This record gives sequence, structure tokens and C-alpha cells, in this order.
Amino acid sequence: MGGSLALAARASGAGWRIIGCDSDPRAIQKAMEIGAIDVDGELNEVAADSDLLILCTPIGAFKSVLRTISEKLKSGAIVTDVGSTKRSVTRSAEKFRSKSFEFVPSHPMAGSDKKGVEFARADLFRNRVCLITPASENSPNSVKIVEQFWQSLGMKTVQLTPREHDRIMADVSHLPHLLAAALVAMQTDSALEFSGPGFLDTTRIAGGDGSLWRDILIDNRDNLRRSLKKFRSELDGAIAAIESGDKQALSDWLDRAAQRRKALHQQKMREVSGD
Amino acid sequence: MGGSLALAARASGAGWRIIGCDSDPRAIQKAMEIGAIDVDGELNEVAADSDLLILCTPIGAFKSVLRTISEKLKSGAIVTDVGSTKRSVTRSAEKFRSKSFEFVPSHPMAGSDKKGVEFARADLFRNRVCLITPASENSPNSVKIVEQFWQSLGMKTVQLTPREHDRIMADVSHLPHLLAAALVAMQTDSALEFSGPGFLDTTRIAGGDGSLWRDILIDNRDNLRRSLKKFRSELDGAIAAIESGDKQALSDWLDRAAQRRKALHQQKMREVSGD
Repeated sequence: MGGSLALAARASGAGWRIIGCDSDPRAIQKAMEIGAIDVDGELNEVAADSDLLILCTPIGAFKSVLRTISEKLKSGAIVTDVGSTKRSVTRSAEKFRSKSFEFVPSHPMAGSDKKGVEFARADLFRNRVCLITPASENSPNSVKIVEQFWQSLGMKTVQLTPREHDRIMADVSHLPHLLAAALVAMQTDSALEFSGPGFLDTTRIAGGDGSLWRDILIDNRDNLRRSLKKFRSELDGAIAAIESGDKQALSDWLDRAAQRRKALHQQKMREVSGD
Repeated sequence: MGGSLALAARASGAGWRIIGCDSDPRAIQKAMEIGAIDVDGELNEVAADSDLLILCTPIGAFKSVLRTISEKLKSGAIVTDVGSTKRSVTRSAEKFRSKSFEFVPSHPMAGSDKKGVEFARADLFRNRVCLITPASENSPNSVKIVEQFWQSLGMKTVQLTPREHDRIMADVSHLPHLLAAALVAMQTDSALEFSGPGFLDTTRIAGGDGSLWRDILIDNRDNLRRSLKKFRSELDGAIAAIESGDKQALSDWLDRAAQRRKALHQQKMREVSGD
């Protein structure tokens, strides 16, 4: 996501000088080649130079990155992130509350199952939602700066608490990822040959990076457990109707799901088209 | 699917005279308006006039439709269908083995979650696969005629036994539908507001018609039970890794699923582009 973020920040016209930092020198080289970043640097150099620093690592690395940069950041610097869970990073950042920088957690809900600078897109964030989960110690001004940053990339910002965020994401993002991966994993190669376009759609998110998702699923496992319970309860109800041949109950349940899915699709299409 | 089928048959240039039959007079009227059909008729009239008759009703209606047409079909007529299960329709057709028509079961793997003639598309079948499950009593010539019909719409035909067909479809189509519906049904409206593009993809197939899918899920419930068992076994393995915090096992499992999903995507894109 770092590459798309740099391109989008550049395209925002806000005149940012963009410094890239990545453990993989090839990623940095590509980011330079496509004009996503102006310069690169080691993490502690980048920290010392930045007004706004955005963590795009897998969430499992946040704690150690925060520790490294906390000593180097200039006074008044603002740090945010793009992670898919928000309670743990908030807890990690609390340890540096005495420092002169502020950490305002963000979750831009945009992305791709294609990983790497070569797939970077300046319009990745346009008309998407960015969830912001301010901490009690954040000043209104810092929250506003982070919100305005995401808005300058074309995003709509919404504030939630870290707890609300993680519960909702377990339902609408983390559980779906787990189910999609299991749906691929259970298949034989010969069955996959006969899969149609519906199967490809249903499992698209399972193409996401394993180490990124591993961190998310483990980090949010308490909520994931709760989401799984709700999912199994719905599934068990449907299976009971299938097994007893209760056509009315089953088509009512399927039709309700179909109507909700269609209504959601229409709502999201309106949002994306900017209405 | 009837509307798209009529448009595609017309576009094939084979010179078919296309007769439409539907219990809903509005559907017939729309099919006439868009030029999908030449004339319409009652089921027994249509049966008496047809060389090739294609059943596009929900699979739950196959038995009664076959009973109605079996007395009227002309000698040498060929009947096929577009249903998503193949054992039950084969059993239903066996009862009419003594008649002078042949039933050759088909499953064109193309479709849309949008139901109705207004969404009909002549190119719906192009570069998609049509599964044919010939019965032992089918003559090679009748099977060939049905295969050539689907091929004339741009499809690739593949032969399977009804048993193989229904097992594979439970894995790659019927179970995914059930899971996608449960994934929608478990959500609160407020959680859905925060769902992203991934959730929309994962649940797209849940937008399909409830009474159509009810018939499929009940008809194929023995195989669905088997598919669910495999799915739960994969899911339980992943949950065990999440709960124990086994990062290596979890990211290996996720990466394997991601790699298989990506390979499948590439393979299907090649097929659709006609390579």
C-alpha cells in the first residue's frame, strides 16, 4: 500500500516531499523509478525528517517500528498507520505518550490483493472510506491533520473507537478472508478446473498476502471468535432447513440475504460514484 | 437465462426459429420486444413444434415439465436443460425412456445474479464451459447435436457423469453460495456500512434468486454435506493455528491458499480470453 499512498499523496497536489523507507531495496528502487518517492532513507533518518509519518508495514511490526522511531521523531510530528486492526497499535503507541509526537490510528479501507510497488495506483483511495480511531491523548488538531490528509486523497473519513473498529472488521473483513481461504484450501485441483466466475469472486480476497493476514487474524482473534459464532449460527439454521427439505424457510432465508446483498451493492456503487 | 440463451442462439447465425415459453406473460412480452424470440406458445404447443427444447426453469420444476412435454414432443426431438444439478433430472428423464425423444442433460456454466429478460446478454456463454452429462440411453448423435449447439454459442463442452458433476458443483458452486448467504445474513446493518470492496466480491453470488438456489441446495444436499465436512476441517485447522498463535502454520496455510487462488485466476483469465 505504501507505493499507492506515495503516488496518491503526490497526486493530491499538496506539495509533499515524500521519503520512502522499506526493508527491501528493490521496492525502494521501483518506487523511485515510478516517481512515487523523492528520496529514500533508513528508518531513523526518515523519522527525524518527517512531519507526517505513515506506517505501512504488517501490523506485527508496528511495535518495533514505533520503538525505533519514537526516539528520533521531531517535536510535533504526527504518526499514523494503515493497519487493519486498531486496538493493539493503540496500546503500543500508548507507551510513547510522554514523547513529543502524536500517533493517530487510521485504517484506509482500500487495497488490492496484488502486493508490490509495481501494482501501485494513485487512485486507490478515491471515494473509499478511511476509518480513524483517535486515542484519548490525541489533540483535536492532530486528528484534523490526519483526517485532512486522507481527505486530500479523495477519501471520506469516519471516526470509530478502536473497539468498535475491531469488532466490525472481524465481521465484514477478517472472517470473510478466513472463509475464502478455507474455501480455496478445501478444493481438489480437478474440482477447481470446473469452477466458474462466481467462485473467483467469492475467493478473490484469499489472494492476499499470507503474512499480512496472519498478523491480522491472530491480533483480532477474540472478535474473530465472536464473528465465527454468529456465522455458524446462520449456517446451522440454513443447513437444518436443507436437511429437513423446508423449502419455504430456505428460500425466505436466501431471498433475505439476496435482497440485503443487492441493497448493499447499490449503496456502495452510489458511494464510489461520489453521490 | 432463457433470454440470454435465445439472444445467443439468434446471434450464432444457425438460423433457429426461436419459440419462447414462460409462465410470466411480461417476460414473454419483453423477450419479443428485444427480439430474443420469434413467437411464444403454451408449453404443449412449444413441445409439439420443437426440434431442440431447452428447459430453463428452476430444477424443482423439471419433473412436471418433462411429464407435460413427454406426450407432445415430436419423434426425434432432443431435450436438454441448463440446471445446476444433474443426477435428479437424469432420474426424472429416465421415466420417459420409452418415448421417441431424447433428453441430454447440460449445465452451461455461465450466468448472472441478475434475473430477468431485461438483463439478457447474447455473449453470456462466450468462452465459458458447458458440462454435458450424457445418459446411457443417449445416442452419440443426440449428444453431438447438444454439444454442437452449445459450441455454436461460443462454449467449450466437457463430458462428466451426473455423479461427478454433482460432487464437483457442491464443492465449487453450491457450498460457496451457502457460505456467501450466511456471511450476509450474520451482519448487522451498521457493520455492513463499513464493508469494503472485498466483502462485495465475496458475497456477490449471494444475490442470486432464492427459489432457484433453494432447489439446488436441497437437491444436492448429500454432496453439500460432504463439501461442508471438508470446508469445516480446513477452517478448524486454521482456527487452531490462530488460537495457539502459530504464525508459521497460519501464514503457510494462507500463502498456499493465496497461491492457488492466483494460479486459478490466471488460468481462468486465459480461458476467457480464448487462449
